[in-house]
Amino acid sequence: MSPTRPVRLALLGCGTVGTEVVRLLHEQADDLTARIGAPLEIAGIAVRRLGRDRGDLPVDPSLFTTDALGLIKRDDVDLVVEVVGGIESARTWLVEGLRAGKSVVTANKALLAEDGGTLHDAAAEGNADLYYEASVAGAIPLLRPLRESLHGDRVTAVTGIVNGTTNFILSSMATTGAGFNEALEEATELGYAEADPTADVEGFDAAAKAAILASLAFHTRVTAADVFREGMTGVTAGDMASAKEMGCTIKLLCIAQRRDDTVSVRVHPAMIPLSHPLAGVGDAFNAVFVETEAAGPLMFYGRGAGGRPTASAVLGDIVAAARNKLSGTRAPSESNYAKLRVRPIGESLTRYHISLDVAERPGVLATVAGVFAQHEVSIATVRQSGRADDAKLVIVTHSAPDAALAATVEELASLDIVRSIASVLRVEGGAG
Amino acid sequence: MSPTRPVRLALLGCGTVGTEVVRLLHEQADDLTARIGAPLEIAGIAVRRLGRDRGDLPVDPSLFTTDALGLIKRDDVDLVVEVVGGIESARTWLVEGLRAGKSVVTANKALLAEDGGTLHDAAAEGNADLYYEASVAGAIPLLRPLRESLHGDRVTAVTGIVNGTTNFILSSMATTGAGFNEALEEATELGYAEADPTADVEGFDAAAKAAILASLAFHTRVTAADVFREGMTGVTAGDMASAKEMGCTIKLLCIAQRRDDTVSVRVHPAMIPLSHPLAGVGDAFNAVFVETEAAGPLMFYGRGAGGRPTASAVLGDIVAAARNKLSGTRAPSESNYAKLRVRPIGESLTRYHISLDVAERPGVLATVAGVFAQHEVSIATVRQSGRADDAKLVIVTHSAPDAALAATVEELASLDIVRSIASVLRVEGGAG
Repeated sequence: MSPTRPVRLALLGCGTVGTEVVRLLHEQADDLTARIGAPLEIAGIAVRRLGRDRGDLPVDPSLFTTDALGLIKRDDVDLVVEVVGGIESARTWLVEGLRAGKSVVTANKALLAEDGGTLHDAAAEGNADLYYEASVAGAIPLLRPLRESLHGDRVTAVTGIVNGTTNFILSSMATTGAGFNEALEEATELGYAEADPTADVEGFDAAAKAAILASLAFHTRVTAADVFREGMTGVTAGDMASAKEMGCTIKLLCIAQRRDDTVSVRVHPAMIPLSHPLAGVGDAFNAVFVETEAAGPLMFYGRGAGGRPTASAVLGDIVAAARNKLSGTRAPSESNYAKLRVRPIGESLTRYHISLDVAERPGVLATVAGVFAQHEVSIATVRQSGRADDAKLVIVTHSAPDAALAATVEELASLDIVRSIASVLRVEGGAG
Repeated sequence: MSPTRPVRLALLGCGTVGTEVVRLLHEQADDLTARIGAPLEIAGIAVRRLGRDRGDLPVDPSLFTTDALGLIKRDDVDLVVEVVGGIESARTWLVEGLRAGKSVVTANKALLAEDGGTLHDAAAEGNADLYYEASVAGAIPLLRPLRESLHGDRVTAVTGIVNGTTNFILSSMATTGAGFNEALEEATELGYAEADPTADVEGFDAAAKAAILASLAFHTRVTAADVFREGMTGVTAGDMASAKEMGCTIKLLCIAQRRDDTVSVRVHPAMIPLSHPLAGVGDAFNAVFVETEAAGPLMFYGRGAGGRPTASAVLGDIVAAARNKLSGTRAPSESNYAKLRVRPIGESLTRYHISLDVAERPGVLATVAGVFAQHEVSIATVRQSGRADDAKLVIVTHSAPDAALAATVEELASLDIVRSIASVLRVEGGAG
C-alpha cells in the first residue's frame, strides 16, 4: 500500500474502552500520523445495537454498524481492533480478519487464554499481526518486553498482581483491618468491583492473564484450563493480622514458574514479605515481577484497568500494526517452540503458613511435627502461643510439593489434639 | 539472506559486558536459535590488545582482532555489537557499520547522548537498525516500551533513578544516617562505586541517560549538552534528616517534563515523599516513573548495571536485530518529528526546600516572606524552630520558575538576619 493512503481500522465494540480509543484517535491524530507516517482512519465501528446515544463522541454516526463480520471483510479495512470481549463471536471475527491478512489488536484476555493458539495460527496463515498488550495489566507495557526485550534471556518466574479489584480489596483489608465483605462493599461503592464480582474475587480474571503471561514467558502454549486457581474470598481479617505479625501482607498473585523443563502456573492468595516490591503495590494498581537468569529481578507497575489506560495500550498496538502494514513487515510471530510441560498444582513447589488451634498439653508440638516429617515437609519456623484453653501453633514450612503440604494439612485436621485449622495460606516471595 | 545461514555478529569490546554477551550467546544458543529462526555466530571480537588471558571464555581465540574497522567491514558480518564505550572511535565504527547496512546494537550512552543524531542519520542512510536498550537502566526493558508501546499516548513526564552508584549512596545515607563521604566509601568497598566516582556522583552518567530518555519520550533530539546537571556530593546527613522529618527521602533524579511545546530535562538531587513509588527503590536498583496522558503512572524497576544484566539487554536487542535481518525488515526508525524546545533550567518549574539559620528576633519571618513575595514565589509551608542563639526556618515553596527560586535564595543570603543558608534542595513528586 502507498504510504500516503490512510491506514483504516475496523473498531469492534464501543463501550468503555472503545469510546476512549475513538477519543484518543481524535485527540492525538497529528501525533499518531507523524509517528506512523500516514493518518489513521476509522472505517467503521461495530456495535450490538445502533441508535444509542454516544454523547459527544467525535465520530461520524454513519460509521456505526451491527454487521461486524461485514465490516471486517471490507477491502478498505487494514486493521481490526476488538474491544468487545467474550469468546465465540470474537473468535469468529478475529480468525476471519487474520486469515484475510488484516492485523488484529485485541484486549480480549478470555479468548486469548482459552484459545490463543487458534488466533496465532490464523495470524500465521494470513501473515498478519496479532497484538494484545491491553489484555494483561491494562496500560502497563508488559507483553512487548516479554515478547521482545527479554528474548535474549531466560525467564525463570513471573509473579504478578494482575487484578485491580482484588488488590484494592486486599490493600484495604491490610490498611483498615476490615474483613473481606466490608472491603468488597467499599470496592463496589467506589466502582472498583462489578455488581457480580465473581470473575475477579474467584481469580478467573487473573487466571486468564496468568495463561497469557506464562505462554509468552516460557515460549509454550498455556491455556486458562492449565492454570490452578483459588480465589481470595476465604482471606480473613485474622489472616491479614497474622501476615502482619510475620512482617508480611497478603496479595492475590498470579504465578508462573519454570523448573527444569516444566512450568507451574497458578493463581491464589499468598503471603509475601513487606520488603518484596509487590507488597507496596496498593489500591487498584497492578504490577508484575519478572525474574530472569541474566537480567535479575524486574518489575512493571501501573494501572491495570480503566477505559483510558486500556485504550492507551490498544493505541500503542494500533501504531505498531499500522507501521508494519505500511512497511509490509510483521511483528515477531508466536514463539511456542519450548513446549514445556505444565505441572499440576500437586507438583508445584510452594510453602505453607498454617495456623492451628491445639490442645494445651505436653507433646502436642512433637505430634504435629511428626505429621510434617512423615510427609517429608520440612518446617521453617514454629510459634507457640496461648493459654490453657486456647493454644495456638503457627507453622511456616520450607518449600515442598503442594500435594505433600495438602496431605499434611489433611492429616493434621484429623488429629484429636488439633481443635481446628484456623488458616492455611501459601507463602511466596521469600517470606519467612 | 537465506534463513538457514547463521546471523553473524561483530562484537566490539570484551570487558565486563562483552564477556557476558559471549557467555550468554553460548549458554542460550539453542533458545536463541529457536527464537530467531537461525543460529547466531560471532564473526570476530575486536579488542584493544590481543593475548590477554580470557580465562574460560567459550570462544575460539582466533576470533580476536585489534582491527575493529576491518572486522565491521567484512562481508560476512550482519550485526555490529558495541560494548566498548567512549565517543570518537565508537562513533567512527558505528557510523561505518550503519552506513554499510549493518544493524547496530550498542550500550554506549555517552555517544548516544552526545551525538545520537549522527547515529540515527547513518541508520536511515544504510537502512539499518539501531538498538540501544542497554544504554539506559541496564536490564530494565524501558526504551522499547518508550519507542513502541507508548506511541499511542502522550508522555508528560519521565522521572528516573538511573544511576545505581548514587542510589546506593543515598539509600545508605537514608538508612544509616551516614554522611556522603562515609556512604561513598562503603559503595567503593562493595564495588558499587568506581575508583573515580565523578561521572556518577556529579550526575554526568544520569545526564546522558536523561538525554536519551527525553529524546524517546518527546520525539525530539535532546543531547547531554541540553541537560541541566547538578551532582549529589552536596547532600548532607542533615539534609537527609530534614527530608525524613518531612516524610521524604532524597534521590538523585533524572527528570524530563513536557509543558506545552517545551521540555525541561535535568538531573539533580531532590526530595520525594516516601509514598512515591520511586522512594522505595533501594540499594543500587534503578527505576523509571513515566507519566502519560492516557495510561496514567507507570514504573519500570530493575538492575541498572552489572555485566550480566546489561548483557541481557544487549542480547534482547541482538535477537530483534537478527530477526529483522532474516525477514528483511527494520525496527521503527528514529521519531523526532516533534522538535520541542528544551527549556533552560531557569524556566523549569520546580519547588525548593530551603533551610535557613536566622537571627532570633521579631519580624524575621515577615522579612523572609517578603523576599519570596517580591520574587513571586509562593510559600507552601514554613516551620520555625530554635533557641535564642540558634533559630531555624524551614521553608517549602510552591512550584515556581527555577530562576525566581534561585534569585530568592541569593537575596536571602544577603540579608543580615540570615546567618547562613543551611541547605537548598529541589522537591519533586508531589512532596509537600
